[in-house]
Amino acid sequence: MNAPEAPDTTAVPRGRPRDAAVGRKVVETVLRLIADGATFGDLTMEGIARAAGVGKATVYRRWNGKDALLLDVLAAVDCFEPPPRFTAGSFRDHLLTAVEAIRRRGLAKRESAMLRTMLGQMQNSPELWKAYHDTVIAKRRAALARLLEHGMAIGAVRPELGADMELLIDFVTGTMLSRTTFRQGASLDEGISERVVDLILNGIAPSAGPAEP
Amino acid sequence: MNAPEAPDTTAVPRGRPRDAAVGRKVVETVLRLIADGATFGDLTMEGIARAAGVGKATVYRRWNGKDALLLDVLAAVDCFEPPPRFTAGSFRDHLLTAVEAIRRRGLAKRESAMLRTMLGQMQNSPELWKAYHDTVIAKRRAALARLLEHGMAIGAVRPELGADMELLIDFVTGTMLSRTTFRQGASLDEGISERVVDLILNGIAPSAGPAEP
Repeated sequence: MNAPEAPDTTAVPRGRPRDAAVGRKVVETVLRLIADGATFGDLTMEGIARAAGVGKATVYRRWNGKDALLLDVLAAVDCFEPPPRFTAGSFRDHLLTAVEAIRRRGLAKRESAMLRTMLGQMQNSPELWKAYHDTVIAKRRAALARLLEHGMAIGAVRPELGADMELLIDFVTGTMLSRTTFRQGASLDEGISERVVDLILNGIAPSAGPAEP
Repeated sequence: MNAPEAPDTTAVPRGRPRDAAVGRKVVETVLRLIADGATFGDLTMEGIARAAGVGKATVYRRWNGKDALLLDVLAAVDCFEPPPRFTAGSFRDHLLTAVEAIRRRGLAKRESAMLRTMLGQMQNSPELWKAYHDTVIAKRRAALARLLEHGMAIGAVRPELGADMELLIDFVTGTMLSRTTFRQGASLDEGISERVVDLILNGIAPSAGPAEP
């Protein structure tokens, strides 16, 4: 897997308590500005600082530019969770945790007009989209790669599938991702993740293989 | 599966040869207008007829409105193929045909700025997107449902999976759909469909089941 372990630029808050409070205030200000109709293009570091009632230097001390700040804002509404560690529990449980995380983010996206708007705008900003991909998405995929390698090590995943880890990750994430993205009306009830995990583990063929040659 | 067998509004050409030529001319005119920078919102039936050098009544005889016309235009660049009949060949071959169709549309979307632009604009027009979904996508899903029911009938697919046909279709399409949509840089070489079909049929667990309890 090529995904680098990018530095965690998404964690809010960090630093001293006072800094954390300022950071939260800035993030909340951006959310308010977007809720009021601002597009990413409208926002400037200066304008954000003014609206938040803090100095420009304070904002720049925390974020080196608008893209870094917007990534933190997105993380604040995107249910970003640190990748699980996969220490205890069965492989199936871990897989369920991963699929559940996609389902929950899908629910959040449906329920949150803000998140939809932000992701939509981000897709129109190739550099910001790339930054989102290289940090948030790459980290999730790296965590899945570790889980799948662990699965191979303990005999829960066919080892030959490791030859194309990226495809394996697409397979594990694709069902829930495409359901949450392309099928707006489709049910996302809790039980669905269990069934998706069962499909991922066992496929659709009877375990003895297809009856036809 | 709830997808109705929608009337085939996407087939171009149809009718008498002269009608077909006019239809093609109108579709090509719309493609040219979009290539020249027109958005869906800019286009009117009158403007399209004028640009194509045909009468407004001629355009309306063929399409009852702009949405119906735009769906035909999209079909002209979207590699729309009639759903396969699944008469001869093994179930695995049919599944490969279905996954290959998604891969080829994904390649076309990457290569065709026009198709990307049109699908992007369409997503901003909820009614047009719904029409696209209810005709083109619903037809593809209905064909897949028939294939999977056939697979159950011949013992190639576990019959209990028929209890949630929509989820089964998401599982069969999700890997390739999410790879072509969310992973712009990912390889779409021909061999990938075979590996996706193998994953769909057999899952990731060793056939004897996971080694851990």
